[in-house]
Amino acid sequence: MPTLKVTFDPHGRTVEAQTGESLLNIAARNGIEIPNLCGGQGVCGKCRVRITHGEVDFSADAMNLLDRKELREGFVLACRTRMKDEDVRVWVPVAADVKDQVLTEDAVSRYDPPTVLQKGRILPDTPYFRPLSQKILLELPEPSLADNISDLERIYRELRKKTPYTDARVDFACLRGLSASLREHGWRVTATLHWNDPNDPSIRSLEGGNTSSSNLGVAIDVGTTTVVAQLVDLRTGTILGVKGCHNRQAHFGADVISRMIFACTRDGMRTLTNSIIETIDSLVDSLLAEAHASTTSVTCFVVAGNTTMTHLLLGLEPCTIRLEPYIPTANRFPPVSAAELGLKSHPTALVHCLPCVSSYVGGDITAGVLACGMNDRAELSALIDVGTNGEIVIGNSEWLVCCSASAGPAFEGGGIKCGRRATTGAIHKVSISRERVSCQTIGGGKPSGICGSALIDTLAELFAEGIIDERGKFVRLDDPRLQVIEDVPEFILAPGSETATGEPVVITEDDISNLIKSKAAVLAAMKLLLDQLGMSFKDLHHVYVAGGFGSHLDVENAIMIGLLPDLPKRRIRFIGNSSLAGARSALLSTHAFTKARAIARQMTYYELSAHPEFMTEFVAALFLPHTQRRLFPTVKEKLAKGRNKA
Amino acid sequence: MPTLKVTFDPHGRTVEAQTGESLLNIAARNGIEIPNLCGGQGVCGKCRVRITHGEVDFSADAMNLLDRKELREGFVLACRTRMKDEDVRVWVPVAADVKDQVLTEDAVSRYDPPTVLQKGRILPDTPYFRPLSQKILLELPEPSLADNISDLERIYRELRKKTPYTDARVDFACLRGLSASLREHGWRVTATLHWNDPNDPSIRSLEGGNTSSSNLGVAIDVGTTTVVAQLVDLRTGTILGVKGCHNRQAHFGADVISRMIFACTRDGMRTLTNSIIETIDSLVDSLLAEAHASTTSVTCFVVAGNTTMTHLLLGLEPCTIRLEPYIPTANRFPPVSAAELGLKSHPTALVHCLPCVSSYVGGDITAGVLACGMNDRAELSALIDVGTNGEIVIGNSEWLVCCSASAGPAFEGGGIKCGRRATTGAIHKVSISRERVSCQTIGGGKPSGICGSALIDTLAELFAEGIIDERGKFVRLDDPRLQVIEDVPEFILAPGSETATGEPVVITEDDISNLIKSKAAVLAAMKLLLDQLGMSFKDLHHVYVAGGFGSHLDVENAIMIGLLPDLPKRRIRFIGNSSLAGARSALLSTHAFTKARAIARQMTYYELSAHPEFMTEFVAALFLPHTQRRLFPTVKEKLAKGRNKA
Repeated sequence: MPTLKVTFDPHGRTVEAQTGESLLNIAARNGIEIPNLCGGQGVCGKCRVRITHGEVDFSADAMNLLDRKELREGFVLACRTRMKDEDVRVWVPVAADVKDQVLTEDAVSRYDPPTVLQKGRILPDTPYFRPLSQKILLELPEPSLADNISDLERIYRELRKKTPYTDARVDFACLRGLSASLREHGWRVTATLHWNDPNDPSIRSLEGGNTSSSNLGVAIDVGTTTVVAQLVDLRTGTILGVKGCHNRQAHFGADVISRMIFACTRDGMRTLTNSIIETIDSLVDSLLAEAHASTTSVTCFVVAGNTTMTHLLLGLEPCTIRLEPYIPTANRFPPVSAAELGLKSHPTALVHCLPCVSSYVGGDITAGVLACGMNDRAELSALIDVGTNGEIVIGNSEWLVCCSASAGPAFEGGGIKCGRRATTGAIHKVSISRERVSCQTIGGGKPSGICGSALIDTLAELFAEGIIDERGKFVRLDDPRLQVIEDVPEFILAPGSETATGEPVVITEDDISNLIKSKAAVLAAMKLLLDQLGMSFKDLHHVYVAGGFGSHLDVENAIMIGLLPDLPKRRIRFIGNSSLAGARSALLSTHAFTKARAIARQMTYYELSAHPEFMTEFVAALFLPHTQRRLFPTVKEKLAKGRNKA
Repeated sequence: MPTLKVTFDPHGRTVEAQTGESLLNIAARNGIEIPNLCGGQGVCGKCRVRITHGEVDFSADAMNLLDRKELREGFVLACRTRMKDEDVRVWVPVAADVKDQVLTEDAVSRYDPPTVLQKGRILPDTPYFRPLSQKILLELPEPSLADNISDLERIYRELRKKTPYTDARVDFACLRGLSASLREHGWRVTATLHWNDPNDPSIRSLEGGNTSSSNLGVAIDVGTTTVVAQLVDLRTGTILGVKGCHNRQAHFGADVISRMIFACTRDGMRTLTNSIIETIDSLVDSLLAEAHASTTSVTCFVVAGNTTMTHLLLGLEPCTIRLEPYIPTANRFPPVSAAELGLKSHPTALVHCLPCVSSYVGGDITAGVLACGMNDRAELSALIDVGTNGEIVIGNSEWLVCCSASAGPAFEGGGIKCGRRATTGAIHKVSISRERVSCQTIGGGKPSGICGSALIDTLAELFAEGIIDERGKFVRLDDPRLQVIEDVPEFILAPGSETATGEPVVITEDDISNLIKSKAAVLAAMKLLLDQLGMSFKDLHHVYVAGGFGSHLDVENAIMIGLLPDLPKRRIRFIGNSSLAGARSALLSTHAFTKARAIARQMTYYELSAHPEFMTEFVAALFLPHTQRRLFPTVKEKLAKGRNKA
């Protein structure tokens, strides 16, 4: 079979391919990112690319995901397009740079020492600042007949002078070669202590000479879509850098469910585990390069991820998570050697995964609770993480309950015609009045799509303006701002003449229906939890909103559509990537790490699928803002005013 | 180079060899035991073999270690004899069977549960009986939506019902594959718990199904010369078998010093570590075969050995132990995976080495103190272990001091013309009167040599009978029982006509001088320790004598020559292989294991080489029984009676 060539633009990279290979696979194999949500199953329609030269085989069954214009212009779905017998040239829409999204939205955790995120000054030794790994330089007196204790006891004696850790366990591996190493290095030795709990340090490395000038840790938020890593100087608590990228597992399925299905095929798990390890390795590599630091400086990782991501990282089968009764192998994980996982780092580095609560409430949520501190307050708080699964935690310093609702990917742009993640070029703010529609894009340029915060704005504004009704249907199909494409009415937010792609950015009636289902799932879950506790929305003193929405989200609009409960604005706070913030807290503080375990242990998981009332609540929430309008008094008032105005 | 053949008799085994190879190496390479003490350095003269066919190269420099008769009969030293260019036939004096020695001399430890050494009945759960590893069968209820905790939490929940160990750590490796394994085995799982300290168990294995019907441990006494292993049923405490063999490291040096020298040559340490691992593996293999048990039933090892042996087993460099200021890498050792050491066993089995005190007071002595319990008594006790190094511990429940004196191998038969270890065929009891010499041999047959207990008898009887003087010199060279060989007078214990070899069994004046030096080193060390404490022999309420002498040793004779202090007989007790007994105690009882650590920590090591007074004491002890005869009042009295009688 002859080797064919594929050139991907705008990168201009030419790679080799075989007849019959799909463009998505060819790109994945060569590390070229083509956005997609379904992992190549031909259902999300996001992997559009344009064939600019050459002939390809395009599977007819996915044609309906492209409109006539796209087909005319040579667009195809990369996953459904296979090489024939000639070289081709392919134009790939520029993949959003995930960095924008994560750098701006990392929350500061209350566990962070005061100077974190500030200048790299050495910190005073606060009770909270005790990283999970610590290097201590020991300068030992040479032995003599009068002082002939063993090498190891000599090390302990010096350690006792410098630290309160009098009886740290020592790993056997530290002893091999120790004798020669101490003598070669003139009785200077660097001990690396690791804490798995605040009272139980262990010595994992005894290196000859002084290696204590550098000790780095990595906090990682392993999301299903995005992986974000932060490099931290463990001597000072200073953040040296943060980087995000797409989870390379996405080549094998966009959401946790498709990953789990793939994991349970032959070799699937190994493939997924390797992918996430590669993803983390490449992030850490580039963080280290920017910090001019070496791989062996990294002695500790703390990972926060949902239960499935954590299982896949650790090489634990996730198959039983997917199927009733939804059982993970474990929710708390012993530390594991980074070398055993295959992560590049110091040979004795450890990986700690933050504990999960259940199959669908993971370490990312534990990290979120840790970061917002709701478990330390007497008043009632809620934490909401809106993603494909919407996770909700309610509680206070006495108790915590949580649940997970399948919200669908609408707020992340999935299943939305012009949906995009919150990255450069996405519309993130929309206001609609009788006269005009105004849009702001991330980065300020021409829009190429619309992200979650703007979808909420759009829904709220369309509803407030009376353009859609309570069920999300367009009231007047003759509105000049509407167009009907293939029988589906859609509202034009930006005409083709004003966009980066030349295509209009629109929201369709189907999009609106998907968004309403998503918000209904989240609200219904929160209401059901509160009902079970004999409480209601107004009892919530704090509502923390975690995740990609970030500061762009307009709280009043989120209330208007019934995504967030109708509470005074000051009670609602966006905490950004609290998964990363919580992981960093744990990395920098054994106290916080221990607290994370207590949080996970303390959280009572409420399995919605075991409660038929959830369906009733869900159906009741499929209205804007809700069937029971009395739950949203300020919305009711605003709408009344709007009507009066009109 | 042509391949030559060597046939070793009486085994009749023919093996291949090359020109220039030494017979000792050829034998070692093929697992054929040739007794030797110096590891092939041509100095101990013990590796005598007879060439019965063929020509060999025999190095002239070692000729003087053989007498004329031996040379005439074709005896050579195997280490100094190299292959020429023809096949040879070699007769090897039968190696002593080490089993006799160890089976009869294993002490019962006070930590042993009551039925140990008795029938294999299940034991009541005594506070002391808690083996270092324990298997627990857990039968888990199947998960459901109403009971959907993780697999691991399900295991913990059941463990909590069956044991008080609510928060045992779990090794990461247990989690991989757990999900599938639980479901394949119908929710039955066997957890193996390991204790490193009584409050801190960890789960090292979670095996699908019921594997709890068999759980074995091995207690090992790793001696420089002999290795003894005991197979123990950890469910009941029953001893399933005990076996001893020579330490295969002996091919590379007889004593710790020559082992250390060899270890510090290129690849030397690896060779020695492999040898001891092979030695243990072969003992365990044969114990398992006799018990009809599989390798994977073994989950735990406890090893007691001197500091050098422990280092070599663990692959730690012993080089600095040998040279002033005598520093070991460590005296306490973290547990290490048996798999990592290369010991055949369950893949998750652990090896615990009993802690040492210093370079020359090792885990065997810690085990001895544990076994005799002197650390639990208010009265003062001494523990004496007479070997090439004589170790002495003095103390009570408040304090323990110890030291080590280089006694030389005389009491083990080294440097003694007809010296043998206490094995079949060795004379172990001697009495000498004016009329006759009577000897008893182990096994009752014709004697082939003389072992330690009989050497003490001989010395005592010769002295009591006035045949030798206080300095160990023969008083009357015209005594008919003497012969003079190459200018050295020797006393005939058994004429050639009555021995197994046809050679007379004798004790030479040089032998006597060596024995006096050995006993002087031990007594001087004990006296110096007591002096330093402001105490004297009569303050000792108990004297425990550990090691190979066993019950054959005549206490009065040992006192007569000044090896043991002059105390009432009831205060002196032989405790046999207390190293093995202590190891077994630790294996069967986390309480005892913890106590062993406390003992090692508590013992104050007294470095004799740093104290010039030792030389003074040593010189004073070079008399029978001692320069200061008032220290031995009963000896003085007996001698006076003897003189009166005469």
